[in-house]
Amino acid sequence: MSRAYNFSAGPAALPEPVLRQAQQEMLEWRAAGASIVELSHRGPEFMAVAAEAEADLRRLVGVPDDYAVLFVGGGATTQQALIALNFAAAGQPADYVVTGHWGRTALRQAAPYVDLRIAASGEAEGFRDVPARADWRLSEDAAYVHITANETIHGVEFREAPDVGEVPLFADFSSSIASEPLDIARYGVVYAGAQKNLGPVGIGVVIVRRELLERAGQPRADIFDYRLQLAADSMLNTPPSWNWYMLGLTVKWMLAEGGVEEFALRSAAKSELLYREIDGSSGFYRNDVAAAARSRMNVPFFLHDAALDAPFLAAAREAGLIGLKGHRVLGGMRASIYNAMPVEGVRALTDFMQEFRRRHG
Amino acid sequence: MSRAYNFSAGPAALPEPVLRQAQQEMLEWRAAGASIVELSHRGPEFMAVAAEAEADLRRLVGVPDDYAVLFVGGGATTQQALIALNFAAAGQPADYVVTGHWGRTALRQAAPYVDLRIAASGEAEGFRDVPARADWRLSEDAAYVHITANETIHGVEFREAPDVGEVPLFADFSSSIASEPLDIARYGVVYAGAQKNLGPVGIGVVIVRRELLERAGQPRADIFDYRLQLAADSMLNTPPSWNWYMLGLTVKWMLAEGGVEEFALRSAAKSELLYREIDGSSGFYRNDVAAAARSRMNVPFFLHDAALDAPFLAAAREAGLIGLKGHRVLGGMRASIYNAMPVEGVRALTDFMQEFRRRHG
Repeated sequence: MSRAYNFSAGPAALPEPVLRQAQQEMLEWRAAGASIVELSHRGPEFMAVAAEAEADLRRLVGVPDDYAVLFVGGGATTQQALIALNFAAAGQPADYVVTGHWGRTALRQAAPYVDLRIAASGEAEGFRDVPARADWRLSEDAAYVHITANETIHGVEFREAPDVGEVPLFADFSSSIASEPLDIARYGVVYAGAQKNLGPVGIGVVIVRRELLERAGQPRADIFDYRLQLAADSMLNTPPSWNWYMLGLTVKWMLAEGGVEEFALRSAAKSELLYREIDGSSGFYRNDVAAAARSRMNVPFFLHDAALDAPFLAAAREAGLIGLKGHRVLGGMRASIYNAMPVEGVRALTDFMQEFRRRHG
Repeated sequence: MSRAYNFSAGPAALPEPVLRQAQQEMLEWRAAGASIVELSHRGPEFMAVAAEAEADLRRLVGVPDDYAVLFVGGGATTQQALIALNFAAAGQPADYVVTGHWGRTALRQAAPYVDLRIAASGEAEGFRDVPARADWRLSEDAAYVHITANETIHGVEFREAPDVGEVPLFADFSSSIASEPLDIARYGVVYAGAQKNLGPVGIGVVIVRRELLERAGQPRADIFDYRLQLAADSMLNTPPSWNWYMLGLTVKWMLAEGGVEEFALRSAAKSELLYREIDGSSGFYRNDVAAAARSRMNVPFFLHDAALDAPFLAAAREAGLIGLKGHRVLGGMRASIYNAMPVEGVRALTDFMQEFRRRHG
């Protein structure tokens, strides 16, 4: 087949112009005599690429000057351990609001290091909503409050930053960063794996209010220390330089397309198209998430008869639509519609869903 | 310029056929409808790529069945912390033999977790040799003995595995893995960042004797737990899949070229050429490492007059030779001559060095 519409949840579709540029520069980056993946991370070429990626990311996401940006290898899950190590004293309380699978994962990374407190959880209701703010039980002495801004598997999204008072709010934005304007100042830490909205797999970013870096945290290896990483320009050890370069290309593409305001419009249009198709299918398709908490990025849905799952996936592939199989935790289907997914791709999906329903309804 | 001979220490030169294949597959991997960097790590395409890379790596390096192979993001420095967390009880002694900069780095990663013991160090002598085995002070109750098989900056290499008795030997092989036959059975853990001999930056491998995974280690986040990573096929979280794919291509190229026996011959030939040029230069060039400990991978050298450093680097670049600037820790020059560097590249370098010496001698 030629390039399909790829609804994979991450690694996910990249903008085709980004892939074409990477392809063109694969043997030699500019006149450097080598590919960017072969050049020293300390050399002038990569240092320029890295600095430009940071400047562009700051512009795209709107990162205030009193926030540092770290580029990290190892993915968002690693950061879920490192935020505890860097910002909580050993055994200090930390409040977690759990709205899906990744919030639960965050608990397991922090558990050895903090007095873990579940301030609220949607688990008993099957993660179909964000627990009402009034019902959260926050601790006054918490090191931070942690939320998962968008749950990639359960398709539950915070539509605004909750007010948590004086305790800093930490948020995993892996699957929704740069999809709409974000008021970073409302957060102490925003972190994200890049492989959904920011670029390729294998790199992540941590945006942290600088004053938080004055916290002592707890004993940890140098390589786990955000302050040392910041002092070393995120190059305490060899960074994933090709991934960083690809992130830079993707961010530049997003800026050229109109930035987060434009992607907010597109995300709204794409997700509305899809939810409308699901809700208007007379129960042939189903999404169980409360309307106000539905994710604009990840749309999990179920066919009314699970026996139709395999034929649905096979026919979708035939139609040039891939990556629709739901995560094994939930089953069913999932369409991830990040920034690199054009509206046309979602329209092709909803057209296909209508046609499939006509044939099997 | 067109593609130069790239002597960068890591990220380092990749085999051109590997880059060409990656270039060709950048828009679409086989008939998958997407690039490998865009496909789900849980999908059949990437799962096959990952499994094939492991099988090929096992064959290339000669990994016995009673050893597990983990593919890890985050680089070798991260593993220096994780080996302590996974294999030492909190505060248990661990013996370190320090033969250069990266051995020193290893200390800082383990320090918070073990009773750190420097069994031997070449630091007082400027890291010009491997301390004689007879002088090591090993602890009977150590969790492990750690060495850096090849020091990328100081150019000091263990030419054989030291006998450390019953305590398992852990070795950082980042810059020499797959450069010659390796008796894995002599080691408890062999770990390496891939960006030198194994492929691209942004991924590493940990080869571990399975019985060691029965050790309790000490409290740690799930994501830091080798047992959990192994149970999840190194996909406890989203792995750096493109980097893994590139590692696979590079390993396949090495197998096709003749495997580690062939690269041992090439490495011997390349390093001999270079050391002969240095030693025969009547002091114009200088390498201070004891002959028996000289690295076959990284050859640091100094010009007799540091004022010639900048002209040397500029003229080298003119001649299509890049990445020769020494690490800031040592200064001077460094030629890294990993598996992807052909003998012709080293010959071009020695020709250039002779010519430069004639002009400036």
